[in-house]
Amino acid sequence: MSEKILVFDSTLRDGAQAEGISFSVEDKIRVMETLDKMGVDYIEAGNPGSNPKDIEFFNRIKDVQLNHAKLVAFGSTRRGGIAVEDDANIKAILETQTPGVAIFGKSWTFHITDIIKTTLAENLKMIEETMAYLKAQGKDVTFDAEHFFDGYKNDPGYAIEALLAAQEGGADCLALCDTNGGTLPFEIEKIVTDVRKKIRIPLGIHCHNDSGLAVANSLIAVNAGVRQVQGTFLGYGERCGNANLATIIPNLQLKMGYHCLADEELLKFTSSAIRIAEISNYALTGKEPFVGKSAFAHKGGMHIDAVMKNPSSFEHVSPDAVGNERRILMSEVSGRSTIIQLIKEVDPSLTKKSAETTRVMDRIKALEYQGYQFEGAESSIKLLIRKELGKHKPFFILEDFKTIGEKTHYKEALSSSAVVKINVDGQSEINAAEGDGPVNALDKALRKALEVFYPKISEVRLTDFKVRVIDSRSATASKVRVLIESSDGIDIWTNVGVSSDVIEASLIALIDSIEYKLLSDEERQK
Amino acid sequence: MSEKILVFDSTLRDGAQAEGISFSVEDKIRVMETLDKMGVDYIEAGNPGSNPKDIEFFNRIKDVQLNHAKLVAFGSTRRGGIAVEDDANIKAILETQTPGVAIFGKSWTFHITDIIKTTLAENLKMIEETMAYLKAQGKDVTFDAEHFFDGYKNDPGYAIEALLAAQEGGADCLALCDTNGGTLPFEIEKIVTDVRKKIRIPLGIHCHNDSGLAVANSLIAVNAGVRQVQGTFLGYGERCGNANLATIIPNLQLKMGYHCLADEELLKFTSSAIRIAEISNYALTGKEPFVGKSAFAHKGGMHIDAVMKNPSSFEHVSPDAVGNERRILMSEVSGRSTIIQLIKEVDPSLTKKSAETTRVMDRIKALEYQGYQFEGAESSIKLLIRKELGKHKPFFILEDFKTIGEKTHYKEALSSSAVVKINVDGQSEINAAEGDGPVNALDKALRKALEVFYPKISEVRLTDFKVRVIDSRSATASKVRVLIESSDGIDIWTNVGVSSDVIEASLIALIDSIEYKLLSDEERQK
Repeated sequence: MSEKILVFDSTLRDGAQAEGISFSVEDKIRVMETLDKMGVDYIEAGNPGSNPKDIEFFNRIKDVQLNHAKLVAFGSTRRGGIAVEDDANIKAILETQTPGVAIFGKSWTFHITDIIKTTLAENLKMIEETMAYLKAQGKDVTFDAEHFFDGYKNDPGYAIEALLAAQEGGADCLALCDTNGGTLPFEIEKIVTDVRKKIRIPLGIHCHNDSGLAVANSLIAVNAGVRQVQGTFLGYGERCGNANLATIIPNLQLKMGYHCLADEELLKFTSSAIRIAEISNYALTGKEPFVGKSAFAHKGGMHIDAVMKNPSSFEHVSPDAVGNERRILMSEVSGRSTIIQLIKEVDPSLTKKSAETTRVMDRIKALEYQGYQFEGAESSIKLLIRKELGKHKPFFILEDFKTIGEKTHYKEALSSSAVVKINVDGQSEINAAEGDGPVNALDKALRKALEVFYPKISEVRLTDFKVRVIDSRSATASKVRVLIESSDGIDIWTNVGVSSDVIEASLIALIDSIEYKLLSDEERQK
Repeated sequence: MSEKILVFDSTLRDGAQAEGISFSVEDKIRVMETLDKMGVDYIEAGNPGSNPKDIEFFNRIKDVQLNHAKLVAFGSTRRGGIAVEDDANIKAILETQTPGVAIFGKSWTFHITDIIKTTLAENLKMIEETMAYLKAQGKDVTFDAEHFFDGYKNDPGYAIEALLAAQEGGADCLALCDTNGGTLPFEIEKIVTDVRKKIRIPLGIHCHNDSGLAVANSLIAVNAGVRQVQGTFLGYGERCGNANLATIIPNLQLKMGYHCLADEELLKFTSSAIRIAEISNYALTGKEPFVGKSAFAHKGGMHIDAVMKNPSSFEHVSPDAVGNERRILMSEVSGRSTIIQLIKEVDPSLTKKSAETTRVMDRIKALEYQGYQFEGAESSIKLLIRKELGKHKPFFILEDFKTIGEKTHYKEALSSSAVVKINVDGQSEINAAEGDGPVNALDKALRKALEVFYPKISEVRLTDFKVRVIDSRSATASKVRVLIESSDGIDIWTNVGVSSDVIEASLIALIDSIEYKLLSDEERQK
């Protein structure tokens, strides 16, 4: 039986401090449900004392029963010079009726004297009294010792006194915070080890990533005896973000032998992480350890050959262990040996030397010459291979389209509309839509026409739309490459289109993205 | 005098393995020049034995003199069963005439028996003979012990034998590679410490980020005695990337007391990193430690108040130390105290209670209600404040525009064109352009007209263009938010536009981005 590490998620509180993140109340509810289903232990969901939107959230969910997680409201110790029960922030926390609370307090003397401007003695009282008051209300109380590591480095005696005050007040767990994210791994190890000798209740760790060390520092703290890990999904958070739980959890469970989540939830971990990113409307880079689209993507020719012989040659864990998948990328370095793997998925009888393989390679080269780039758009290359091998029956044919977008005088109403005509198995369908610009109008008209034949198209939504001008040094006319990322809530896939006109490039990618969805559904049914 | 750590950059070799990276020969030359100017010690620039484009690169730069860095060609030890001097890969390396070479060899028995399929004894000979041959040619030779940590964990005796073979052959440095990125920090520390006892020549470290630990593992290796650090800029690399030198260098130099780069180069570090990202055409997330746009961005109200009192309250190092800057973000959490800082930049006499402040706040709220989001687009909010305070004299007025984009029949030639009429100080200018779609046509027509008055507009290029459909649950008509990122090679700035039509939204952002450029140039001249 492996030892349990408590996962304390703060995506909805500290994560919401990230630049570019702005959760609606509905978003928060959806993230909370995803986290609860995944099996995290604590969900810190907001700061009711400082944020009216968080109060609305806590009111909305009062009747929601979570399966596993304890909901946590966050705030600070009472202010100086007043009674705990008179503190507006503490009152706001109690009104949320959450079973858990997380209270941050100061442990760095500089912050006490220079920022909140009270005395060191009063600060200790603020901590102890706030803990005692909340414990008397029956709460599960975590004390977040803000700036603990900076405080310890500056005045270890006082930093420990702050922890002792929280312990004395009855806190259930003391989370040591590297609030500024500047602490080095050797320091974390040494300081946690020292704190463990002086504190008898469980410790937690809360790291920020300003030095690129938040994940390592969290693992090192666990190794030194900490039993609660705070972080956010995908490392959302202010500045460089918080410790990324999507990286920490697999490391703890798959590599360090601790228990965080139920095994079956870890097997679905990548799609849970993608879901949180989607709700947060936060683009993934693909490079995210364990859950990124590139995390198990192989590009170098030698690497690909080795992975084909034995995946552990270039994979530290199996992608299946976290619900991710292996991908083989195109590039001038990998070349033909990559393509052949994808060709074999369609027709296992073909080899590197088959005429069909040459035809596919020639077609890819011709498209690359035109400005296509298939890395990150394997769904487009999979379709291309099927087309070249004559194994793809298109789900529809676009017979005609027209977009109209004419505007005169800035500030007048603008309008774009599109008409499309498609054909499915000999049956034509014409439809039209207005849209937010010509591409959106086309997208909508196309979907309206297709949903007549394929109702599942309604599950798909565009999650990202990227346009790059291709810097073609020799040609006079530059081209644009459009990448469209789509999701049906389970998978995310990307398609590419290139043209001298952004509308045509978009349309090529759009058609591929729909074909790919329909093909994937068909293959899943088999 | 602080101890020197040799910086070994592999952006152009291992970094080129990243999904989405595809360097042209010109790109490689520009990255090389940037790295040399910055003062890295080694630039590993390609693998001539496996990549024809790299051979072209090395041929092109044979006459280039670098100021400081040693250029390095990369390849593997000789193949099994042949003489070093007959190995095509070794010949290709020598033909590059680089002063440095980096040779990878196997130290994990599983890779020798199962992947390259030779004997353990022959592998040791391959290493030693390759080292000896290259040293005889006068090269500065680094031996990359591929999969060293996995090899050591599996068979420490053999892994050390592989290192001893390279030492015996005369290698100048032995780089211990965590090729699969799966090694934990505690393991790195223990293994490096053990290797140090058995090897007398300098050690290097080469980490991958599959567990999110590459930076920490590199720092821990240095702490344990390694003196050469390999990595890539911004962590480019296969799968989850390589160790990020843009994070490692400031950590080593500012926090651990080692010497990597000249101090004056560290002061320009952020712009050097942005330059490499630009050449690589790789979007930054902003969250990058030290060099990201968000790295010193403050959003929470309490944090902002504290940073105003004393920046070290929420900053682990000063942004100036790496040539970055502090930013104060808008959000419902920070609110008025944030805006007032930006207002004071324009008019220091205004306070939170001024009528002007209320007017700015009301305008921002109204725009946010329309779907604007100003985080990440401070350049738009700075312009807004100037406009509301009557302190902005527009550099131009867009008097009229018209876009024409009509296409019939898919596969026919598509064309988009635009006509714009602007006015600068009472002087009108009308111009037109064709473009890759209506937005591009507008952009080009606008620039053509403006360059008549402002030649510096030609320095600006759009580096990213993002379109997001705003999920407005209550309204029937959805809106789009366009973010346009622009660069003049020195700065990167982002502007935002919202409209029900993507063309209008783009135009709003485009006009702001040009106004911002002209305003910044004007302020720089003051």
